Amino acid sequence: MASDPLPSWQETGPRAALLDFVARVSDPDHADFVPAPERIAVFDNDGTLWSERPTYFQLLYARDRLNQKAGEDPALLENEVMRAVAEGDWDGAFSGGYEGLIGVVTVSHSGMTVEDFQTDVRDWLAGARHPETGRRYTDMVFAPMLELMALLRDAGFTVWIVTGGGVHFVRAFAAETYGIPPERVVGSTGPIEYRTEPGPPRIFKLPGLEFMDDGPGKPVGIDRQIGRVPIFAAGNSDGDYAMLEYVTSAPGPRFGLLVHHTDAEREFAYDRDVALGALERGLIDAEGRGWCVLDMARDWSAVWPER
Amino acid sequence: MASDPLPSWQETGPRAALLDFVARVSDPDHADFVPAPERIAVFDNDGTLWSERPTYFQLLYARDRLNQKAGEDPALLENEVMRAVAEGDWDGAFSGGYEGLIGVVTVSHSGMTVEDFQTDVRDWLAGARHPETGRRYTDMVFAPMLELMALLRDAGFTVWIVTGGGVHFVRAFAAETYGIPPERVVGSTGPIEYRTEPGPPRIFKLPGLEFMDDGPGKPVGIDRQIGRVPIFAAGNSDGDYAMLEYVTSAPGPRFGLLVHHTDAEREFAYDRDVALGALERGLIDAEGRGWCVLDMARDWSAVWPER
Ligand SMILES: [Ca+2]
Ligand SMILES: [Ca+2]
Repeated sequence: MASDPLPSWQETGPRAALLDFVARVSDPDHADFVPAPERIAVFDNDGTLWSERPTYFQLLYARDRLNQKAGEDPALLENEVMRAVAEGDWDGAFSGGYEGLIGVVTVSHSGMTVEDFQTDVRDWLAGARHPETGRRYTDMVFAPMLELMALLRDAGFTVWIVTGGGVHFVRAFAAETYGIPPERVVGSTGPIEYRTEPGPPRIFKLPGLEFMDDGPGKPVGIDRQIGRVPIFAAGNSDGDYAMLEYVTSAPGPRFGLLVHHTDAEREFAYDRDVALGALERGLIDAEGRGWCVLDMARDWSAVWPER
Repeated sequence: MASDPLPSWQETGPRAALLDFVARVSDPDHADFVPAPERIAVFDNDGTLWSERPTYFQLLYARDRLNQKAGEDPALLENEVMRAVAEGDWDGAFSGGYEGLIGVVTVSHSGMTVEDFQTDVRDWLAGARHPETGRRYTDMVFAPMLELMALLRDAGFTVWIVTGGGVHFVRAFAAETYGIPPERVVGSTGPIEYRTEPGPPRIFKLPGLEFMDDGPGKPVGIDRQIGRVPIFAAGNSDGDYAMLEYVTSAPGPRFGLLVHHTDAEREFAYDRDVALGALERGLIDAEGRGWCVLDMARDWSAVWPER
């Protein structure tokens, strides 16, 4: 018998449902067989593939870079949201929703080439440590999700990330961390520009936010970049509701997975009561829509990879 | 000995240069070896993978749909550019550049779901015939380019289309015609919206043009959707100049290919003197930049597939 493909999953419902779905759609003799090119799986990133507390890790990066720049230019912190971010006051930082964060993102995410930005993100990921766990952020990915992605790939799936995070940020580590190449990351984007001066031709990151890959933006991002409807979607917040709805209401076999953060012992426990990224409507509608709700404390035998 | 991978290519320079490049970058023992995930090839579509005379085939589709709608609503043709398109006066149609065509594209390319639009495009492609050759448009793809794409794929390349054409239009036939799946088509886009009413959730095409994947837009489209710099680019007009420049000025082995339409006998002969899609700067700079200029009359033994 082959070794267990999901060793970090308990012998509970989600594990069985996932194995059953993957077996059905990849078996040419099964009525639910789906040809390999259509076997597309999409995963949200923050809170689905890695942790997201005390806030999105990308924002912790932005905070560090903001504080560096504010050392040279203290006027940056005269703005209320900027000051909240610099101080790690996340409720304050989110008081204006995503819109209010554009200024912060502009400071840390524009005014350089894509290449230079991604080098900086990798440097940060290599050195930074999570304030509570002391782990590297890339060591706070979910081991069971790495196993699930491997299971899907072994069954002929193409695995994508569809994230509210910045596309250049997530691409900077997705290949090494998840085995997902840059072209399979769909994310939020700022304006970019092709520049031939000075030096060699490069893509330059400009200020602002152009596309928010969250909520109804997720099906839009999927259409723009994938161009067909995936058959599997995983998320963890109501920002993923439209994506799961889009994926699972199309005809044929479909799988919608919601990660419910219930594990205050090993990770974090939260759903409705967070400033951004809450899960409420998804929990209410999951049963009616046939979505699988994963209870982290009950369904996973391990959360992060062993160090 | 294996059979010739490029039977429609003459024993001239481009054939040898292509075979040499592909062998070098895919040979692990060669100094120019490129790991498979980085072996990305991008092709322009109109004039590079299929013909584009008397005008872009997408515009012939738009013309047919405009004339259908004008039957019910003659006011549509009160606009000058609209009337020019309806009459097949392509110089008149292009008098306002791409911008002037937005109205035409809006009539034929918005107000429906992506799915319905693509079904309509496929229906049109199945029935329509080219005014001069009597061929189906999908029978006016270039046989040598189909061979080249197969050669690249056999050598571990991932082959993409990066087109000024509409992304939904090209995706409607790229899989069947070129073996290129929807997610590997980068193109121009109009605004789209996720709608759950009425009926099942769908992506809906809205009026207007959001992103023109031409000129400096091509490197932008490549960054957005591919996220790394390809090592091979093929085009046929100055709208591909920035793409070839972006691809071939990055370090490492690179290949830039320009298709020069020189074959009035078998296809069409044109370069500088066309209203849209001219090739002038590329021809001037090709030698200095090390780009391979393909002379269709000299370098191809066949143009379209045999019927
Ligand atoms: Ca999330
Ligand atoms: Ca072209």
